[in-house]
Amino acid sequence: MADQSAIEEGLGFAPQFGADGLVTAVVTDAKSGDVLMVAHMDAEALCRTIESGEAWYYSRSRKKLWKKGESSGHVQRVVELRVDCDQDALWLKVEQQGPGTCHTGRRSCFYRAVPLGKGGAVTLEFRDAEQTFDPKAVYGKP
Amino acid sequence: MADQSAIEEGLGFAPQFGADGLVTAVVTDAKSGDVLMVAHMDAEALCRTIESGEAWYYSRSRKKLWKKGESSGHVQRVVELRVDCDQDALWLKVEQQGPGTCHTGRRSCFYRAVPLGKGGAVTLEFRDAEQTFDPKAVYGKP
Repeated sequence: MADQSAIEEGLGFAPQFGADGLVTAVVTDAKSGDVLMVAHMDAEALCRTIESGEAWYYSRSRKKLWKKGESSGHVQRVVELRVDCDQDALWLKVEQQGPGTCHTGRRSCFYRAVPLGKGGAVTLEFRDAEQTFDPKAVYGKP
Repeated sequence: MADQSAIEEGLGFAPQFGADGLVTAVVTDAKSGDVLMVAHMDAEALCRTIESGEAWYYSRSRKKLWKKGESSGHVQRVVELRVDCDQDALWLKVEQQGPGTCHTGRRSCFYRAVPLGKGGAVTLEFRDAEQTFDPKAVYGKP
């Protein structure tokens, strides 16, 4: 394991992949600052993102490397890539090509809010949940 | 496992904790939109956050529940809590009390950028990396 102070204060890039070989990647819209999605990267996805300036991820459900937009055309151009203090999380500020990020047809994957300050059962509330594209038209039927 | 369309399109809150019992929590500054930190929540941390409107997390390194600010006083008041499409990630927009979020003394944990478009070895670049408080004074010596 690398030295903690080197990881936190140094300029050496030493991404701390988890036991599953992945780091968490938070993706925000470079203009609005809104969080668009949370995804994961393996070393190969990270390498391709750095080299190409376009976002690649590793899909845990499909167990494969994927380029964002490879099916939809909704590519993400990376404006800035940052790493956090302990180098186990990444922040991508992106220009999202096309009408949205989420496979459900929304601009962002975060289209529901959890009400605060209430005990008991929680009912979500839609926020910014309008569809900006038709996922069936973009991705086709499964 | 819950039905996928209920998870994605429903208003029932069904956070999908991983095998480690945790969900990823992205924390942004409610005013600037900057990502302040990425942390994790277990069910108890999530429950306390919803009820109190202040952020609680689960520390993977210390293996314990913690309230952000319990040592530093740098509490996070949650302005909005959102959940993503597949309900395995949370987005907290917070008002960060005190001069900063990061245990290294910075406003955000993301104070270094990864240069893009270059092959070979990567050298990080400091961005917004000025210390806004002295961590030794705030946390004491370990």
